[in-house]
Amino acid sequence: MVLTDETHLSQPQSPFDLSAYLSEWQVQVEAALDHSIEVVYPEKIYEAMRYSLMAGGKRLRPILCLATCTLLGGTADMAMPTACALEMVHTMSLIHDDLPAMDNDDYRRGKLTNHKVYGEDIAILAGDGLLAYAFEFIATQTRNVPAEQVLKVIARLGRAVGAAGLVGGQVVDLESEGRSDVSLETLNFIHNHKTAALLEASVISGALLAGAAEADLQRLSCYAQNIGLAFQIVDDVLDITATQEELGKTAGKDLQAQKATYPSFWGIEESRNQAQRLVESAKAELATYGAKAQPLMAIADFITARTH
Amino acid sequence: MVLTDETHLSQPQSPFDLSAYLSEWQVQVEAALDHSIEVVYPEKIYEAMRYSLMAGGKRLRPILCLATCTLLGGTADMAMPTACALEMVHTMSLIHDDLPAMDNDDYRRGKLTNHKVYGEDIAILAGDGLLAYAFEFIATQTRNVPAEQVLKVIARLGRAVGAAGLVGGQVVDLESEGRSDVSLETLNFIHNHKTAALLEASVISGALLAGAAEADLQRLSCYAQNIGLAFQIVDDVLDITATQEELGKTAGKDLQAQKATYPSFWGIEESRNQAQRLVESAKAELATYGAKAQPLMAIADFITARTH
Repeated sequence: MVLTDETHLSQPQSPFDLSAYLSEWQVQVEAALDHSIEVVYPEKIYEAMRYSLMAGGKRLRPILCLATCTLLGGTADMAMPTACALEMVHTMSLIHDDLPAMDNDDYRRGKLTNHKVYGEDIAILAGDGLLAYAFEFIATQTRNVPAEQVLKVIARLGRAVGAAGLVGGQVVDLESEGRSDVSLETLNFIHNHKTAALLEASVISGALLAGAAEADLQRLSCYAQNIGLAFQIVDDVLDITATQEELGKTAGKDLQAQKATYPSFWGIEESRNQAQRLVESAKAELATYGAKAQPLMAIADFITARTH
Repeated sequence: MVLTDETHLSQPQSPFDLSAYLSEWQVQVEAALDHSIEVVYPEKIYEAMRYSLMAGGKRLRPILCLATCTLLGGTADMAMPTACALEMVHTMSLIHDDLPAMDNDDYRRGKLTNHKVYGEDIAILAGDGLLAYAFEFIATQTRNVPAEQVLKVIARLGRAVGAAGLVGGQVVDLESEGRSDVSLETLNFIHNHKTAALLEASVISGALLAGAAEADLQRLSCYAQNIGLAFQIVDDVLDITATQEELGKTAGKDLQAQKATYPSFWGIEESRNQAQRLVESAKAELATYGAKAQPLMAIADFITARTH
């Protein structure tokens, strides 16, 4: 029997099913989050914290952390407490951003915002409670990781959420509102800090928990920064093109508020192209990991393909 | 020569100079806090964080941490980053408590409150920034302490500030406002969480950094809980008896707000007695450490003796 040409060809790779991958991890993350906060006296604050924490969402930050940790040889168990903490911090930033003194939003993820349900005072405190608990949770719940690495994760998360990260981005965002002279540099600063910093911390914390080498950390930082900015560009585009039902929050808000956005600099089509280029750059950083990096590759693609 | 009776008597112990002790440490804590936050872009948030952090105050929490760490054989250098973090967390809680949605205070330590100077949005973010930075600061700046112990400090601080501590106490405090049926049990809950929890974390974190044994931790917890409650009772009394100038904040506010206070249960004289009994119990816990515990002893006395 003679081998035909065909048998030399590798079998076509089974396409990676991102939807199944995300769903599977979402279930595990939801369960871990659900167990992370028990309602005890004074019940109202724990209910307020849980209301926003359990309000759905893609759980992208926890999944990035879990995917990166397992990519580099760590286990999901090692990363789950940090994955939960990332979602707590993200939720805190949403609760505080939605406050009347900030963006004054009534809806988030299709539900009333925290302060609309519990009042401003409790919403501020629920955010504080989630932020403090995130650090406590990593410190007390992380298993089978050297304490030095856990400290690095805590330091990284602290930087990502503080004035050098989320908080600093929100400050510049607030200062820029209603101004017509916002530069592209300023817009980049806002989103590198408001969005990319925590996505980067999600990826890097997963890597640190797995004991990553410096070269891995650098590659993964580039990956995360690129998908972070692409994520925000797509968000800006969706704010214009998607419906309120798809977004689960008020659509067209940026235009109404005369906010500087990527489409306001580049138009919608070029914004989409820029996002696509960032995603390609992000994926190029992962080439060295081969098929193991399929989840992170697919997550990068998902960012530009999503409709909400 | 015959020895007289007198020569058998020990020399009278030189009285411990608490005022000099506090001043000396205050200078060092102020310097460390001043170095802890640099003003970079976006300047406004760093200035807002520094405005409240550098607004004076007794620096009691940092000094409790430093005093406990050195009592148990640790060094001040080991404890200084945590000492600073405790003041950052304390400052965050003051900024958020003063917000219009909470206690709505215009003055604090004789100066305008953070939101009166920077606006509500920046004040919320300055609090968030200080809280996140506190954990980052401990994780990155602590030297010569095993990482496991640093993690315990972080866990303890997180619990003290979150829903199981400060935040939970503030929630019950807000719920109790304007109600005439607040029980002594509820009042104790409020202050054990709003005040005593962070004082206890200050003492215990100093002990953990020094590598304290379990027996030390238990004794020092009792000490801290007792002085924490005494501190609040004295605060309540001073709100009635001291002038606005002495307090550096609006006097008589509790009465105006019809808040439940210890004097409203016990009267002023019995409140003072209760505080004194708590201070004596606190000091009894320290007997085993002898003269080395003079600073913590004197701090306990200072709590009932202070006039502002």
